[in-house]
Amino acid sequence: MNAPAAHLFQPRALPAAMLDELKTRFGERCSTAMAVRLQHGRDESPIDAPPPEVVVFCESNADVVAVVALADQHAVPVIPYGAGSSLEGHLLAVQGGVSLDVSRMNKIISVQPEDLTVTVQAGVTRMQLNNEIRHTGLFFPIDPGADASLGGMSATRASGTNAVRYGTMRENVLGLTVVTAQGQLIHTGTRARKSSAGYDLTRLMVGSEGTLGVMTEITLKLYPQPEAVSAATCTFPSIDAAVRTTIQLIQMGIPIARCELLDAHAVRAVNRHDKLALTEAPMLLMEFHGSAASVKEQAESVQEIATEWGGQGFLWATTPEDRTKLWAARHRAYFAGLQLKPGCRSVTTDTCVPISHLAEAVTIASEEAEAAGLTHYIVGHVGDGNFHIAYLIDPNIPAERELAERLNLQLVERALKMGGTCSGEHGIGLHKMGFLVTEAGEGAVAMMRSVKQALDPKNIMNPGKIFTA
Amino acid sequence: MNAPAAHLFQPRALPAAMLDELKTRFGERCSTAMAVRLQHGRDESPIDAPPPEVVVFCESNADVVAVVALADQHAVPVIPYGAGSSLEGHLLAVQGGVSLDVSRMNKIISVQPEDLTVTVQAGVTRMQLNNEIRHTGLFFPIDPGADASLGGMSATRASGTNAVRYGTMRENVLGLTVVTAQGQLIHTGTRARKSSAGYDLTRLMVGSEGTLGVMTEITLKLYPQPEAVSAATCTFPSIDAAVRTTIQLIQMGIPIARCELLDAHAVRAVNRHDKLALTEAPMLLMEFHGSAASVKEQAESVQEIATEWGGQGFLWATTPEDRTKLWAARHRAYFAGLQLKPGCRSVTTDTCVPISHLAEAVTIASEEAEAAGLTHYIVGHVGDGNFHIAYLIDPNIPAERELAERLNLQLVERALKMGGTCSGEHGIGLHKMGFLVTEAGEGAVAMMRSVKQALDPKNIMNPGKIFTA
Repeated sequence: MNAPAAHLFQPRALPAAMLDELKTRFGERCSTAMAVRLQHGRDESPIDAPPPEVVVFCESNADVVAVVALADQHAVPVIPYGAGSSLEGHLLAVQGGVSLDVSRMNKIISVQPEDLTVTVQAGVTRMQLNNEIRHTGLFFPIDPGADASLGGMSATRASGTNAVRYGTMRENVLGLTVVTAQGQLIHTGTRARKSSAGYDLTRLMVGSEGTLGVMTEITLKLYPQPEAVSAATCTFPSIDAAVRTTIQLIQMGIPIARCELLDAHAVRAVNRHDKLALTEAPMLLMEFHGSAASVKEQAESVQEIATEWGGQGFLWATTPEDRTKLWAARHRAYFAGLQLKPGCRSVTTDTCVPISHLAEAVTIASEEAEAAGLTHYIVGHVGDGNFHIAYLIDPNIPAERELAERLNLQLVERALKMGGTCSGEHGIGLHKMGFLVTEAGEGAVAMMRSVKQALDPKNIMNPGKIFTA
Repeated sequence: MNAPAAHLFQPRALPAAMLDELKTRFGERCSTAMAVRLQHGRDESPIDAPPPEVVVFCESNADVVAVVALADQHAVPVIPYGAGSSLEGHLLAVQGGVSLDVSRMNKIISVQPEDLTVTVQAGVTRMQLNNEIRHTGLFFPIDPGADASLGGMSATRASGTNAVRYGTMRENVLGLTVVTAQGQLIHTGTRARKSSAGYDLTRLMVGSEGTLGVMTEITLKLYPQPEAVSAATCTFPSIDAAVRTTIQLIQMGIPIARCELLDAHAVRAVNRHDKLALTEAPMLLMEFHGSAASVKEQAESVQEIATEWGGQGFLWATTPEDRTKLWAARHRAYFAGLQLKPGCRSVTTDTCVPISHLAEAVTIASEEAEAAGLTHYIVGHVGDGNFHIAYLIDPNIPAERELAERLNLQLVERALKMGGTCSGEHGIGLHKMGFLVTEAGEGAVAMMRSVKQALDPKNIMNPGKIFTA
């Protein structure tokens, strides 16, 4: 299954009594205005669904507890909503219910620079966090394309460009405050860097896509801002050559901080959107962190490997301003890409494969998309073995969506055969349920369902995502 | 609760029919000999319990499936057994049943050097793995004190001396083959470095202490052997000074590979046991990995910090032989320590605290043990904020055990107040159930119980561990 079928849409009625109680408690923070509902009823996926019945803007743990307790009482779905930037239909109200908006829960609760930890409310976005902690000399490295909320990033087990060096949300969430499906507030994890104390509820919640509870507070690892940073771009004769450079530097253990691939289409999109003049050919965009000497050494090693694979035009962004410009352009690649085809929506793939298979995986994906004649571009966190191909489809032409889904199907099946995964960092949502079964097997998915049923027996937490009820 | 109370011992009968079926299938690999049962009925914890009813030596996934399916049918406990080196009573047959020995499942199934991954059977030990993959130029860094099995290491979320740089089992297990409590074989994870595909069953299993299923195969991350390695010891005027050196180098982001504390007692034990002549004072034992230049730079930075805290007598182990000797001595510290008090058993603490609190935590623990007059020593993976104090007790003097448990109680309560955990790497087992409730809270423990009940409704998987019932 690639696109959500009609049977996924099973709206449940929102009892008038519950709506009354929500209005009494939340006043203007409880909205049934169609504009608000519509805004909360979609995300960056190409899927349409009816909007939620009501949107509640929570401002505290107590607010979240109140909403979930009511939802539990009335067996009504609750969909946690952060920044609205998920890509796989996570936010769609396929069974109706309440959109629980945490975007106003946007306080940094406490920062402990000496422990390299911070605790934030779930609505804090990654950019806000880094702005607010800059004075400490620390930073939080996880950076999906959007300025996502840290709650949403935890829920989808997000990563981004720095994961090759710093890990993903899986490695960087130390603890959580969670409102369970019964409306109970619990805490998972501690501020210690490691623990063997019982089941790893933190990592059970991270990546659970809002289906097991609402994360309201998140304790994260921070990192010292590196003493020295340098960034470089390098152009390659083929996607294959760029990826083989990456494979080799990973195999050698060079501690590169970022290693991003853009294909020629992605470079063209970024050039247009950000008025840059990058050579429109497959490109690696790299960054090195460390002491001045170590950064220099890493850069020299990588330049040597790249040159062997035909890399040329090494351009160094030496000032912070130049680096920021380059990475901002990379982060805007998604929106820049959409403008390659005005009015389009994007079907975005997200496979991750063992590194030795990456060149083959990306090259075939590129060739298939070219042969199909569908506008597309490729960006990849290639140091992790993860890449995205965005197929740009006209939402009014069903054949284009079908073509994109068929290409995605081929690509995912190939990735799974290579020992990879159908989702590196976007999650399953509505869009990849079938792939999850192929990847994990019926037995493992049955185990996931058992966990879901144990923790959310009324199936109120973001129902219809990850697996059908 | 610090020591297992009588109510934890609730042996269930092993039906004769099941024993017959086991004997028919496994022949000599099914043993009821008392010597074998006794050997499988204890671990390195100071706790005594009746032995399991029967020991079955499994050699394949099919063997494990057969044992667990029978146990499911007859509602009989199954205790997975690897190397027998756990420290918190994990292997004790408190409810009787079958000890399922996986030590003969000791094959490296496949190694993919180009992907930096390996898949092993659960009975492979960490030293065996590193011996067998040495020719690939790769290594597996996680190294608890014992030559533990990788199944046991996964089950307790083990770490060791390299975790400060390479993470723990939590970060290094990519995927698992698991026999569920219903005797079904499932697979979790993939060989990709990251994934957002559904619930993180891999990390739910890692650290579950055999209570959710039997791990039979494990896919692990490997790392390139560093180009250059250097190790050094440095002696400090106090534990406080040694720990403050550690805190500062972690806060600066120096990528030290190992940073171990030994107090004067531990150094004395190691000197005696390994015929070394280390200065008997608080000591840091450190290792640096990287390029030759980067190792030199790291070592210089650390030496500078250590000197500021009064560190002296920096001794460099430059040859591989010297390094091996030093680390082998460190790894034998547990057994060396036991010889400080012939005939003793060890009550070993395992707290981990946010790094800024570490100096206080270790110093008070040391002072309290000295004041109590109980033989003890301290070793610590201080780069992680994790340290162990081993109280050496005479098993025939109940007052010594009570004293050790009281000191441990004080130490854990202090660690929890500091934002830490009651177990950094040993697990909960029988010994820390009460601490788990204090640390995680009733709500989170209730969630753990729900997961347990959902996946093991008959409570046959290592029952009576982590939480009662």
